[in-house]
Amino acid sequence: MPNESDSLPPGPLSNPGANATADQIAEIEEARARMAETRRVVAPGLEEVLYTAFPVLDHGFVRVVDYMGDDAAVVQAARVSYGRGTKSVRNDAGLIRYLLRHRHTTPFEMCEIKLHVKLPVFVARQWIRHRTANVNEYSARYSVLDREFYIPAPEHLAAQSAANRQGRGDVLEGDEAARVLQLLRDDAAACYDHYEEMLNEGPDGAPADPGRQGLARELARMNLPLNVYTQWYWKTDLHNLLHFLSLRADAHAQYEIRAYADVMLALTERWVPITAQAFRDYSMGAVSLSAPALAAVRRMIAGETVTQEDSGLSAREWREMMAALER
Amino acid sequence: MPNESDSLPPGPLSNPGANATADQIAEIEEARARMAETRRVVAPGLEEVLYTAFPVLDHGFVRVVDYMGDDAAVVQAARVSYGRGTKSVRNDAGLIRYLLRHRHTTPFEMCEIKLHVKLPVFVARQWIRHRTANVNEYSARYSVLDREFYIPAPEHLAAQSAANRQGRGDVLEGDEAARVLQLLRDDAAACYDHYEEMLNEGPDGAPADPGRQGLARELARMNLPLNVYTQWYWKTDLHNLLHFLSLRADAHAQYEIRAYADVMLALTERWVPITAQAFRDYSMGAVSLSAPALAAVRRMIAGETVTQEDSGLSAREWREMMAALER
Amino acid sequence: MPNESDSLPPGPLSNPGANATADQIAEIEEARARMAETRRVVAPGLEEVLYTAFPVLDHGFVRVVDYMGDDAAVVQAARVSYGRGTKSVRNDAGLIRYLLRHRHTTPFEMCEIKLHVKLPVFVARQWIRHRTANVNEYSARYSVLDREFYIPAPEHLAAQSAANRQGRGDVLEGDEAARVLQLLRDDAAACYDHYEEMLNEGPDGAPADPGRQGLARELARMNLPLNVYTQWYWKTDLHNLLHFLSLRADAHAQYEIRAYADVMLALTERWVPITAQAFRDYSMGAVSLSAPALAAVRRMIAGETVTQEDSGLSAREWREMMAALER
Amino acid sequence: MPNESDSLPPGPLSNPGANATADQIAEIEEARARMAETRRVVAPGLEEVLYTAFPVLDHGFVRVVDYMGDDAAVVQAARVSYGRGTKSVRNDAGLIRYLLRHRHTTPFEMCEIKLHVKLPVFVARQWIRHRTANVNEYSARYSVLDREFYIPAPEHLAAQSAANRQGRGDVLEGDEAARVLQLLRDDAAACYDHYEEMLNEGPDGAPADPGRQGLARELARMNLPLNVYTQWYWKTDLHNLLHFLSLRADAHAQYEIRAYADVMLALTERWVPITAQAFRDYSMGAVSLSAPALAAVRRMIAGETVTQEDSGLSAREWREMMAALER
Repeated sequence: MPNESDSLPPGPLSNPGANATADQIAEIEEARARMAETRRVVAPGLEEVLYTAFPVLDHGFVRVVDYMGDDAAVVQAARVSYGRGTKSVRNDAGLIRYLLRHRHTTPFEMCEIKLHVKLPVFVARQWIRHRTANVNEYSARYSVLDREFYIPAPEHLAAQSAANRQGRGDVLEGDEAARVLQLLRDDAAACYDHYEEMLNEGPDGAPADPGRQGLARELARMNLPLNVYTQWYWKTDLHNLLHFLSLRADAHAQYEIRAYADVMLALTERWVPITAQAFRDYSMGAVSLSAPALAAVRRMIAGETVTQEDSGLSAREWREMMAALER
Repeated sequence: MPNESDSLPPGPLSNPGANATADQIAEIEEARARMAETRRVVAPGLEEVLYTAFPVLDHGFVRVVDYMGDDAAVVQAARVSYGRGTKSVRNDAGLIRYLLRHRHTTPFEMCEIKLHVKLPVFVARQWIRHRTANVNEYSARYSVLDREFYIPAPEHLAAQSAANRQGRGDVLEGDEAARVLQLLRDDAAACYDHYEEMLNEGPDGAPADPGRQGLARELARMNLPLNVYTQWYWKTDLHNLLHFLSLRADAHAQYEIRAYADVMLALTERWVPITAQAFRDYSMGAVSLSAPALAAVRRMIAGETVTQEDSGLSAREWREMMAALER
Repeated sequence: MPNESDSLPPGPLSNPGANATADQIAEIEEARARMAETRRVVAPGLEEVLYTAFPVLDHGFVRVVDYMGDDAAVVQAARVSYGRGTKSVRNDAGLIRYLLRHRHTTPFEMCEIKLHVKLPVFVARQWIRHRTANVNEYSARYSVLDREFYIPAPEHLAAQSAANRQGRGDVLEGDEAARVLQLLRDDAAACYDHYEEMLNEGPDGAPADPGRQGLARELARMNLPLNVYTQWYWKTDLHNLLHFLSLRADAHAQYEIRAYADVMLALTERWVPITAQAFRDYSMGAVSLSAPALAAVRRMIAGETVTQEDSGLSAREWREMMAALER
Repeated sequence: MPNESDSLPPGPLSNPGANATADQIAEIEEARARMAETRRVVAPGLEEVLYTAFPVLDHGFVRVVDYMGDDAAVVQAARVSYGRGTKSVRNDAGLIRYLLRHRHTTPFEMCEIKLHVKLPVFVARQWIRHRTANVNEYSARYSVLDREFYIPAPEHLAAQSAANRQGRGDVLEGDEAARVLQLLRDDAAACYDHYEEMLNEGPDGAPADPGRQGLARELARMNLPLNVYTQWYWKTDLHNLLHFLSLRADAHAQYEIRAYADVMLALTERWVPITAQAFRDYSMGAVSLSAPALAAVRRMIAGETVTQEDSGLSAREWREMMAALER
């Protein structure tokens, strides 16, 4: 895939295939080589990277396996709904921006994307809370998980924030960082060794140790830690994808899921560039002002001096508003 | 589209374009003429009829506007889930049939289809009860509905069943049938005439009668009867499509929605032929036996004489079971 | 129920029972008279009006048939999620306001409400687009609809807005208004007369005219106009109820559905007063500023003169922002 | 709660409170002591055990925290839908059984239940695949998980089935069983020790070791194995609860989730006894016969000798059918 990496935007979409196995790379190459004719709409930017595995974290990846529709499909659906009324909006980009700004979400449900994702189990547990999606996960009841665990890069080894129960503080350093990495690595290795021992499966399906039976896979897996990697096919529509990104490509999201969301956002930009730009303007960079906050802003613009006390906002809301206003 | 009709199966998929307007046919021809290259999986049987409008009832149609995946995509998703375990199933058809038989439904959610449907409002109201789908309907708040109403063909002018509150009885004949058709036609015409009068819209957007304002579209529409035609884009996954078909391509469904379901089933056969066949075997033609009915069947096979009284079944359940057994 | 009306807030919740039939009122009185002991949490404000039918439009109503949870149940669910972390939020109201402000929506899903609603079919068609709800609608396949149609009050007989395709303009007056009301009334009456004639059902189930069979109910209903009343049980959780209200108790919603949403909001205030107040502050009265709009506001507060041209906003976005800022 | 245990059915609902902490038991007793008056329908059988924690596995439990509706609420919703038509069904039980037999599922969506469940993470990961439910899970981003792990009882320490990739075989015995239990216990203990060490939290929130910062909770949790216990509030409607039970209270479900489903089924019997009985008859004990299997059964009843070869069934389908027929 070296020829693709040239055209990739800098940042999240780089180093394709880095976390894929040799088998997967061969399979991906083969799939990418097949071209067929279709009457369906085609998103050229996404076709370029179809099937390609983009690395996330130390062993994970995201790759687009299939898609339906593009920016024009959003417009087409909106014009079915709003009929002649939509012709007054001058162009497709204007219509898409109008729809997103005014929460007319159903036309965005008319595009669909299917991803193959490899991710640590504790990330999968956050992700699955988004219920409006279709999922097929690799089953550890039926199959054996690989010996792959997420070990954070040193720069992501964050301390607990003292100010904020859900946030991260400074990065751990020196001995403390080394000790944490050692514990994570050793416990993962020991747990996996024992998982294999309990399974007692030889390479050919026969018992590794013929004197023992081997514990059922559905039980043995319980010894694996939450940073073990799993994988799934995940399929959703564009509206729900944007909702996922608005929560997970956000500074409040845990770094490990944000790393996936960042790659997904870059893929979304290849797929539906107009929608992705509107999403950046109206959703990611937007701020919601409550009724009392809006009243305070109006007074500020009029030149009044406004204080937290006379704003009717709580101290916390005041801080949040002033942060948004960069004051 | 004359060249397509040759390859269409007999029955529901025939007479393409019959209910489409000249504008729509031109648009469809143009869309069908565009071919592009894609790396995605392609379902050749469905590509053949992509965008083509298949007539349903007197003015309705169903056409496939886009799709994602095929039979192989179901298999691919299942193999992600079940890993090495699925390799023991000999082939794709065997796996698909196993999945459907045992209600492993998530792999079927990995395929998606988008339809453009024109249908009477009373059919749309039944259809929309299937909530797991994406819908963009033509809006009569924004736009003006066309003068098109469903008037049943004489052979579908059924009397109320005396035996069954939800069923149809004999077909009406003679004067009674003629009177019903007359009422339906006249009321639809009068209601639409008055809808137009209340709207007071001229062809150029200016008032038809400059001395009046015209009632808001969102209000005027309330004068239209439930057999007026509407249209929508409707998108769902293969699992939910099959669920829809199991309820609506069934003898208990109202004829008017079944006519749509029959065309959709024929399109499904073009899209995912293996899945469609498994669906016919395990879902459409299947019968569920309750615990006591199963006990009765076991006794019958053993040569015993079983009566309703000693079966533990209610009279109604007994009748249902004997009908299934054709006894 | 006269003793309840005293304690009702002014506005939407008034005149209970006005649109209910004598039978319904008797049934409601009987249901209200039954009291039982429960260990569940109880919302006293809602118990006061449980089962009571509050009139909406000319023949419709909304009544609460059952509910689960209250403001405290939201807090309880949040404390399960966030554990010790949530104890730092001083009190229940503070936590609820924090959750709503930061889109932590799942705790609000832990409360549920079930409504019985009588409404015109064209309103039901807008309403049903909210898919995350459970619905049981009166079936015109099985049963006969009553002779009840929505005829707008004169002050709601709005002209089509010239400026806005989805909005309403001035109220129609004089002859034009009279003509519209006459058409709506006459067409509804004629359609219903013919519906009855086609059904041919006598009061005792026997044919009204023994010489005819009667058209199947599922067919005859298609002759009824979209302002005929239907009814349903509608059940949803508090999060989805608030989402419904944010779209339908809004100035952009069609008046006829907003009339229902207003009553539902008043009922929500009785059920979960703290959540309802937070919803008013953070959702109903809130405004979302896009990234470029926020930049413009920051400059305005700093005393700069900002124009549409140098703001990077489109003319339409600029108008929307200035309207929000009341400038 | 000793007085409740007398009235509990034998089997799954026994030994209430066994896995609850002293704090939880006190909280439960307090909640149970509160009684209030309500106009809502009450399910007496469920009120008896409301809030009570029924033990599942070694540290888990299920308890009902709230509910809405009862068997009568299903009937009420059905009668709204089917109107006069339903009066012909003689009684409530007959109607409920008819609805369930014929897949008229929406009336069952009108009842809702909210559970508090404590369960191992690997069970939670199977459970969450049921998407039509509301969930609030204890968050290990915000809070610290307790030192509690699922260690199977010796009689559930099953070997991998040789015949079936997803099933269990014989129970492990002797040294092999002892070794497995030792590994599970030791790894859980070591992982938890290191989790605590990485967190470095003292009982008062201050660092346990003041010379270190402590790793962020959202990271430290990744060292815990999949048998660690979590807890959540889980709320769903009766239709989706039955769907869950049909899959999870089934012999093909993994024992550990079936243990929860069995308790939930016993609670369902207390809540909606008529529906629960119909569910046992028509769903749990039922068998679906495919079209070709039904044809074979008809021939068997007619006294013919039918073989796999002339049945049109695959070898696997034939085995499945013969097992259902107990032949």
